[in-house]
Amino acid sequence: MARAFAIGVDFGTNSARALVVDCRDGAEAGTAVFDYPSGDHGILLDPREPHLARQDPADYVLGLEKSVDAALAAAEKKGGFSRGDVIGIGVDTTGSTPIPVDARGKPLALDPRWKGNLAAHAWLWKDHTGASEAAAITATAAKHAPQYLAPIGGTYSSEWLWSKVWHCLKVAPEVFDAAASWVELADFVPALLAGISDPKKILRGVCPAGHKAMYSEAWGGLPSKEFLSRLDPKLAALRDRMYDKAYAADRPAGRLSREWAQRLGLNEGIPIAMGSFDAHYGAVGAGVKSGTLVKIIGTSTCDCAVAKASGKIQDVPGICGIVDGSIMPGYYGIEAGQSAVGDILRWWVEDICQGEGALHAKLSQEAAAIGPGESGLLALDWNNGNRTILVDPRLTGLLLGQTLHTTRAEVYRALIEATAFGARAIVERMRDYGVPIERVVCCGGIAEKNDLFMQIYADVIGHPMLIAGSPQTPALGSAVAAAVTAGAAAGGYRSFEDAQAKMTSLKEKRFTPRPQAVRVYDELYALYRELHDTFGAVPGARADLPSLMKRLLAVRERASVARG
Amino acid sequence: MARAFAIGVDFGTNSARALVVDCRDGAEAGTAVFDYPSGDHGILLDPREPHLARQDPADYVLGLEKSVDAALAAAEKKGGFSRGDVIGIGVDTTGSTPIPVDARGKPLALDPRWKGNLAAHAWLWKDHTGASEAAAITATAAKHAPQYLAPIGGTYSSEWLWSKVWHCLKVAPEVFDAAASWVELADFVPALLAGISDPKKILRGVCPAGHKAMYSEAWGGLPSKEFLSRLDPKLAALRDRMYDKAYAADRPAGRLSREWAQRLGLNEGIPIAMGSFDAHYGAVGAGVKSGTLVKIIGTSTCDCAVAKASGKIQDVPGICGIVDGSIMPGYYGIEAGQSAVGDILRWWVEDICQGEGALHAKLSQEAAAIGPGESGLLALDWNNGNRTILVDPRLTGLLLGQTLHTTRAEVYRALIEATAFGARAIVERMRDYGVPIERVVCCGGIAEKNDLFMQIYADVIGHPMLIAGSPQTPALGSAVAAAVTAGAAAGGYRSFEDAQAKMTSLKEKRFTPRPQAVRVYDELYALYRELHDTFGAVPGARADLPSLMKRLLAVRERASVARG
Repeated sequence: MARAFAIGVDFGTNSARALVVDCRDGAEAGTAVFDYPSGDHGILLDPREPHLARQDPADYVLGLEKSVDAALAAAEKKGGFSRGDVIGIGVDTTGSTPIPVDARGKPLALDPRWKGNLAAHAWLWKDHTGASEAAAITATAAKHAPQYLAPIGGTYSSEWLWSKVWHCLKVAPEVFDAAASWVELADFVPALLAGISDPKKILRGVCPAGHKAMYSEAWGGLPSKEFLSRLDPKLAALRDRMYDKAYAADRPAGRLSREWAQRLGLNEGIPIAMGSFDAHYGAVGAGVKSGTLVKIIGTSTCDCAVAKASGKIQDVPGICGIVDGSIMPGYYGIEAGQSAVGDILRWWVEDICQGEGALHAKLSQEAAAIGPGESGLLALDWNNGNRTILVDPRLTGLLLGQTLHTTRAEVYRALIEATAFGARAIVERMRDYGVPIERVVCCGGIAEKNDLFMQIYADVIGHPMLIAGSPQTPALGSAVAAAVTAGAAAGGYRSFEDAQAKMTSLKEKRFTPRPQAVRVYDELYALYRELHDTFGAVPGARADLPSLMKRLLAVRERASVARG
Repeated sequence: MARAFAIGVDFGTNSARALVVDCRDGAEAGTAVFDYPSGDHGILLDPREPHLARQDPADYVLGLEKSVDAALAAAEKKGGFSRGDVIGIGVDTTGSTPIPVDARGKPLALDPRWKGNLAAHAWLWKDHTGASEAAAITATAAKHAPQYLAPIGGTYSSEWLWSKVWHCLKVAPEVFDAAASWVELADFVPALLAGISDPKKILRGVCPAGHKAMYSEAWGGLPSKEFLSRLDPKLAALRDRMYDKAYAADRPAGRLSREWAQRLGLNEGIPIAMGSFDAHYGAVGAGVKSGTLVKIIGTSTCDCAVAKASGKIQDVPGICGIVDGSIMPGYYGIEAGQSAVGDILRWWVEDICQGEGALHAKLSQEAAAIGPGESGLLALDWNNGNRTILVDPRLTGLLLGQTLHTTRAEVYRALIEATAFGARAIVERMRDYGVPIERVVCCGGIAEKNDLFMQIYADVIGHPMLIAGSPQTPALGSAVAAAVTAGAAAGGYRSFEDAQAKMTSLKEKRFTPRPQAVRVYDELYALYRELHDTFGAVPGARADLPSLMKRLLAVRERASVARG
C-alpha cells in the first residue's frame, strides 16, 4: 500500500500548530508551531474593557500557511515522506470564535476600512463582553423557548455566538450592518483552504452550530426568527444570512483549492475535513469512544464523552452541550468543563506566592508528602465561576480549614483536590443521567507533567487515570478526521473508530486509585458537596454547615492517625 | 512635695521589661528590657509535644533583678532621680502561668533534682497540653456546677490553671506529688520581692484566681472539693494547699524585703502592689474606665472593660471573664479577646507570601488603595479558633470570594477586615448585655504602627480609635498600681481613677470613621455574621448562604460604582 499522510492543524489561543502524521499508525512525521504575531500573544485587548479579547484574522491566514509549510518541511527533512503523500487536511480551532465577513466571505478586518475597529475582528472564545446579552438570551429562552436551553445545560454563555453578535450590534452597529454573515473560525479555515467565498456556501460544522449557536434539527436549525426578533429584529434578519443546515464530520468541508495547493505544495483537490473545536478533535485524538471520558486538562478543563446516537439521549442538567454528531459522526457529543483548573494553581503559585515554574515543582513535591485529609483544608474550585454542573460564571472561590500553621503546599494540594472534586461531580452527573463512564483518558500539559495532580484525580474520582499517547491530541484528532474524510481507498479509513484504533494510543504510564486515599476522599467529597450544593444554591441541598469545620477536623485527625 | 517614682515590671512571653515613672505625670524616667536566656526566646519546648510551652523560673528571678536594676540606672543617668525616690513596685505577667512550688515557696525547677523535668517548670500561658483536661472540666462543670462556667463564658480553657495542674498530675505525677502548691507567676513575683516563703501566706490576686482558676466569693473561693474530686481526688486534696481567698489591688501584696531592697538599692518596706495579668494592668495604663474599651492589639487581642461593681453585673454569654476587682478595685473586670489578629497577618505575609517586614509595609500600602468591599472578599478570622464570642478553639479560618485576579494585598486587607468584624462582634455582644462602650482606646504594636489597620477598625466598629499615650501600657499600669498602693501620703494616689487621670494619656493621633466606608462595612458585617453564625453553630442562626457569594459581589459592584 502506498504511503499516506494526513495533516491536522490546531488553531489555539496563542498559536497555530500543524502536525503531519502517518495514517498507518498515527506516528508524527513532522510538526511546527506558529505564534500569532498580533497584539498580546495574538490577542487584541482594550484597556478600557477588560472583558474584551479579539484576534486579527490575518494571523489565522498567516499561521495556516506558515505552520503547515514548516511541518511539511520537517517531515520531508526526516525522510520517507513527500508532500504528494498527503491525502487530507483536518482543522480544529478555539470556539466560539465568530468572525464577521463580507459578501465574498472575507473577514471585515482584512479590509483596510475596518482594520482599526476591534469589533470587526474575530471575537475570541474568551471575550466576555456579551455577558448581559447572554443573560438576556437565557431569560428570553427560559420564557419563550425552553427547548433551546435543554441541550446546553440551561444557560446560554457570554462566550457563545449570539451573545457576541448581539453585543456587536449594540456597541458597533456599523460593523454589524457591514457583515454579510458571521463564520466560526472552525468553519472559516476549511472554507479558506477550499476556496469557498460565498458565506452561504461555507459548510458549517454541527459542532460550533450545536454547542454555541443553539442549532438543532429538532427545531429546524438556528433559533427561529420569532425568537431572535424578541432579542432584536436585526438578529432575525441576520438569520437569513447565516445557514440552514450544519454538518457532522462524515463529509468533507471542501477540497483543497488550486491556490492553497500551490502555496503548500500539496495535491489540489484532496479533501478538507469538517472543522471542529479543539477539545472535540482533541477527544478524538485521545481515543474517545462509548464509555470513555476524555479530560483535556489545561488552564481550564474540557470533558468530552460520546454516546451512540441510536436513540435520543436525555438532556443532562448542568451539562453545557449535548449535540448529535458534534464530536464524531454517529454519536451524541457530550461536553462539560471546569472553568479554571491549571489557572487556579497558576493563580496560587504565580500571583499569590509569586513564584514561577520552579515553585510549582517545589510545592508539588511538598504537597505529595501530605496525606489525603491531613491538611484539614477544603476548597471550592470556583475562582472563575462554575461551568459544569452549576453553570454559573459568577460563583467565586472558597477556602476553609486554614490555621496559623497552614502552608503554601497544603493550599496548593487543597486546590488540586478542589478541582478533582469538581471533576468527580461532572462524572457523577453524567452517570446519573445514563452516560456510561468506564475509562478516563487525560491529555494536556498537566496530565503529562504533574504526577501528584494525576494521582489525586485517580484517588478522588476512583478510576485509573490513563494518559493519551500524543501530546498534541487536537492536531492528531484533526488528522484522524482528515484520514477518515479521505477514505480507505486513498490510504485513510472508512470510519473514525477504525482510524482511532490505528492512529491513537495511550501512554504506558497510568495512575491507579489507592484504596486508603479513596476512602478519605470519599469523606472529603461528601463535605465538598455540602459546600458546593449550599453555595451553589442547588435546590433542596442538604447540608449541615454548622458542623462542617469540625467534621473536616475529624477527617484530619483520622488521616493523621491512619498515617501513624 | 518630694519627688516620687513608681516601678512597673512587665513579665512578657519572651522578656521582662521594667519601667520607672514619675508619679506626678507618668513620664518615663528609665526603662530596660531583659530577654529570657533559656530555651527558644525564653520558651522551653519539647519536639515530641507541639502543644508544650514551659519557662524556667530562674529566668524570672534573673529578669526581675536585671531589668529593674537597668531601668533604675537609666533613670539615674537621666538625672532628677535617685533610687530612694521609689515609693512602690507593681508587677504584671502573662497568665495563666502557674508554677509548682515546694513548701518554702520555691519553684521546684530551681531544685537540681527537678531541673531536667519540664513538668516542674512554669507552665506558660500558651501551653495547650491540657486540652483534653479542659474539655473534661467544661463537661463536668456543665453537668454538676454550671455556675462555675457562667462568668468565664461557658468554656474552661486549656490555657488555664486546672487544665495544666490536672495534666501534670496525669503525665508527671511525681511532680504533682512533690508540689506543695501551685502559684501563678503574677502572684509569685510580688511574693518573691516581699520575701514571703510559705505558699499559704502568698497573697493571691483575684485576677488570676477569678479569670483562670474558677475562683469566686459567690461559691466560697476555688471550686469545691466535691467538684475537684469528680476530676481526681488528688486535685481535691491540692485545694487545701492552694488558697481560701484572693484579693483585688486595693491592698499591697507585701513590702519589699531586706534582701531585694539591697539587691536593687531601694528602700526596704516600700509596698508591692498585687500582681495582675499584663492585659489588665495594660488596660489600667491605657486609661480604662466605665464606658471605655481598651483593645490590646498584638499577635492576639485582649479587650478589657470595667463596670462599676455597685450591683451584680449579668453574665455575658461568650465573654471569657467577668471578675469583681480583677482589673481595678471597685469594678467588675470584663475580659474578651481574639485568639489571632497580628498572627493572621503574620501567617499571610510570612508563611504564605514568605516576605518579611518590608512586605507587611508594601501590602499595607497596596491594601490602603483598595476601597471597602471592592475586592469581593470576605474572611472569618478563626485561624486560631474563636475566643470570644463563640469560645471554640477548634474553629478554623475561611476565605470566600477569591477569583483568578485576587491579589495578595486584597487578601491582606480582607484578613484585617475579618479581625475587625470579630472585634465588632465583641463590642456588640458587650453592649447587648449592658456594658456601655463609648470610647475605644487601642494599644500595642499594631495600634501604633499600622494606620490602615486602625482606619479599618474605626470604619468597621463605627467608633473613633484612640491610641494610648504610652507604648508600654502594661508596665505603666503596674506603676499606677504601685503608686496607688503607696498612697497619696507617700507621693502616690488614693485611687486608681486619680492615678490614671495624672499618669496615663492618649496620643493626639486618632482614627475617625469615614461615613462612606461605614456604610459598606455595615453591609459586609451583616454577611460576616451570616458566615460567623452558621459555621460557629450559633443556635437559631439566620443565614441565606446560597445567595451569599452573589450578595458579596453586589457589594463589590456598588463599591466600585461609588468610587467611579
